[in-house]
Amino acid sequence: MDEVLNLAKKAKEASKKLAQLSTEQKNRALLKIAQYLEENMEKILTENQKDLAEAKKGGLSPAFIERLTLNEKRILDMAEGVRQVAKLPDPVGEVLGMTRRPNGLVIGQVRVPLGVVGIIYESRPNVTVDAAALCLKAGNAVILRGGKEAFNSNLALVTLMEEALRSEEIPEGAVGMIKTTSRDAANYLMRLNGYLDVLIPRGGAGLIKTVVENSTVPVIETGVGNCHVYVEEDADLEMAERIIINAKCQRPAVCNAMETLLVHEKIAPVFLPQIGKALKENGVEIRGCEVTRRYIPDALPATEEDYYTEFLDLILAVRVVRDLDEAIAHITKYGSGHSEAIVTRDYFKARRFTEEVDAAAVYVNASTRFTDGFEFGFGAEIGISTQKLHARGPMGLKELTTTKYVIYGTGQIRG
Amino acid sequence: MDEVLNLAKKAKEASKKLAQLSTEQKNRALLKIAQYLEENMEKILTENQKDLAEAKKGGLSPAFIERLTLNEKRILDMAEGVRQVAKLPDPVGEVLGMTRRPNGLVIGQVRVPLGVVGIIYESRPNVTVDAAALCLKAGNAVILRGGKEAFNSNLALVTLMEEALRSEEIPEGAVGMIKTTSRDAANYLMRLNGYLDVLIPRGGAGLIKTVVENSTVPVIETGVGNCHVYVEEDADLEMAERIIINAKCQRPAVCNAMETLLVHEKIAPVFLPQIGKALKENGVEIRGCEVTRRYIPDALPATEEDYYTEFLDLILAVRVVRDLDEAIAHITKYGSGHSEAIVTRDYFKARRFTEEVDAAAVYVNASTRFTDGFEFGFGAEIGISTQKLHARGPMGLKELTTTKYVIYGTGQIRG
Repeated sequence: MDEVLNLAKKAKEASKKLAQLSTEQKNRALLKIAQYLEENMEKILTENQKDLAEAKKGGLSPAFIERLTLNEKRILDMAEGVRQVAKLPDPVGEVLGMTRRPNGLVIGQVRVPLGVVGIIYESRPNVTVDAAALCLKAGNAVILRGGKEAFNSNLALVTLMEEALRSEEIPEGAVGMIKTTSRDAANYLMRLNGYLDVLIPRGGAGLIKTVVENSTVPVIETGVGNCHVYVEEDADLEMAERIIINAKCQRPAVCNAMETLLVHEKIAPVFLPQIGKALKENGVEIRGCEVTRRYIPDALPATEEDYYTEFLDLILAVRVVRDLDEAIAHITKYGSGHSEAIVTRDYFKARRFTEEVDAAAVYVNASTRFTDGFEFGFGAEIGISTQKLHARGPMGLKELTTTKYVIYGTGQIRG
Repeated sequence: MDEVLNLAKKAKEASKKLAQLSTEQKNRALLKIAQYLEENMEKILTENQKDLAEAKKGGLSPAFIERLTLNEKRILDMAEGVRQVAKLPDPVGEVLGMTRRPNGLVIGQVRVPLGVVGIIYESRPNVTVDAAALCLKAGNAVILRGGKEAFNSNLALVTLMEEALRSEEIPEGAVGMIKTTSRDAANYLMRLNGYLDVLIPRGGAGLIKTVVENSTVPVIETGVGNCHVYVEEDADLEMAERIIINAKCQRPAVCNAMETLLVHEKIAPVFLPQIGKALKENGVEIRGCEVTRRYIPDALPATEEDYYTEFLDLILAVRVVRDLDEAIAHITKYGSGHSEAIVTRDYFKARRFTEEVDAAAVYVNASTRFTDGFEFGFGAEIGISTQKLHARGPMGLKELTTTKYVIYGTGQIRG
């Protein structure tokens, strides 16, 4: 607790100075971080090996170990990512609007850093560097709490970043890492109102739920994506197939991958055999409704639970629906408000879908896989918000800021 | 619990339809509410009398009873407030930006309603109508949970609003009121993730703290204002006096009133006797630091606690500081991030104050009393946010919305 409180105090102290840094100072520090990462590759890999050895000994899954693994290419990518952040425009100081009131007060709204950002994440060491770089660029101090399985890797990365920042005279405490791996430390962090301005959990549904339920600090929920593609009766079926295969198979383990396919009943007899074949060729297990199984006979039966599930795997639920209304109702009931797509030629159906589906990103005739800060042109991403407050959808640098009103008077008093 | 869950389900159902209503439909409903309020004044006043009788029997304070009291003028004001909301531009549907990506995807960001908004408040019946009108205009369903002392007044108001909405075919559940007055009902509401998109507490520090600590639904903190005015050595002292008297005395019980005065030590010998006299003439009790008491001999000694206190009364803490640095440090330590003002002629000091003071509203040469949705030109106000996520400072209709990305493709898939 003392450790976390101390970190938070230092971060808060640092955040005041960070908010005043020039863009040049922040960029110099970011470039120094990139340089140190490249120059100290050996050190990082050695520490990562310790984590990997533990993980293998502990029998963790190949997918887990894959996410935990660093190699030269991944470290170079991390460094390159930091350089990209240095190139992005500084969000701090942007004036969002300025008005002159009838009484002569000039009221401006200015973008300023959030202050202190907490990130709770799992065992992907690249998040450590990503998150620190984005927070620094937006003028925030950051407190990192990564998964214990990546402890040695994270410590090596944070130590290097601290050295880089020190050499550029960035205030101590700008990047902090919680070194106690107990749950108590994380729980304590979640209740540090007054020190922490926001907490962003990055990881699976379980982690996010824990943070939402235990945190008194404001939280931005990220990531859970139970995404749908709905194929209308008038769809271009070749386009539909292309989009479905991309949305399901290009990278099935990410939040913007499709989890359920909805098909209009009129085209089910034609389209389901076609898409069933294509999906199987791509190694996808199909779990279908009764009608689906009529046209894709070897599909497993879909359960109610399947429609709620973010498989993050080559598994797809398929359901035949009566019409657009039923498709929207299905998405409203089972969806997580992440990314939803319709494939249609019909203008009015497209319009209804975009207006009535309540999600961070609603697509017409495109793959759900585009919901991503880079694909949206933000140049970076700290996560994808599936809640409605503050930020919704991909979050870039702007979403790591807040605003303040600055009011210039000449002695005005209220009447 | 069943009652609250049912309300929430109805509200969620209603919110889908509310999001699709045209501006005209919403405005017609608002005007009908205003009309019903005026036509049913007697009924409202009769119910309010019941609450007032209970409150007097229960020995509640005159200030409390004042806030609880309705009369003809107040009901007319409420109705007029609703008509004003009808006149405001509809925030829903505004396109905040639209870009065409290199791959041909057209990505737009559109303003949409939040969905279901919960308001937990104390015993001011006007909040019932205010909040409902603002939520409706922004396309949200609202669940109201007012103080039990205003139960009969609130029930009368909500019943009238429901009738007005029904006559305009607004979906049932658009305005809901929790009729169980137990704390359990409020606590249950605070954990209704999946139904409630945001919870806004309106009231004193105790209420807000309870909601922040117990809620798993995202909360927007409002209202606590420990506001400062700092008088620099070079200030126009007449202007400073005018601002101080206004910020402290014009309406001491509100969150944007000044609670602590900071004075540069160089002008203390001249300014403190002057301002001490003016404050006393306005009935203000002064609690000063040691130096202050040298120049205002009958001031009480200020305690550490006083500097943290939002008096909401004709009480003022006064402290002499060495310089701008010490003033900013004081505000950083004791302030609540609401509204802070400097009185100065110096350009560079003004600039430093606006940049280094971390608050929702930072003033140069004006009274803190202007932090208000109406004074800022928003035409309405649902509260003043003192947190940094989603909204900071006065919140109008825009702050009751979120956005979604709408993406128009021609078959794009991710490479």
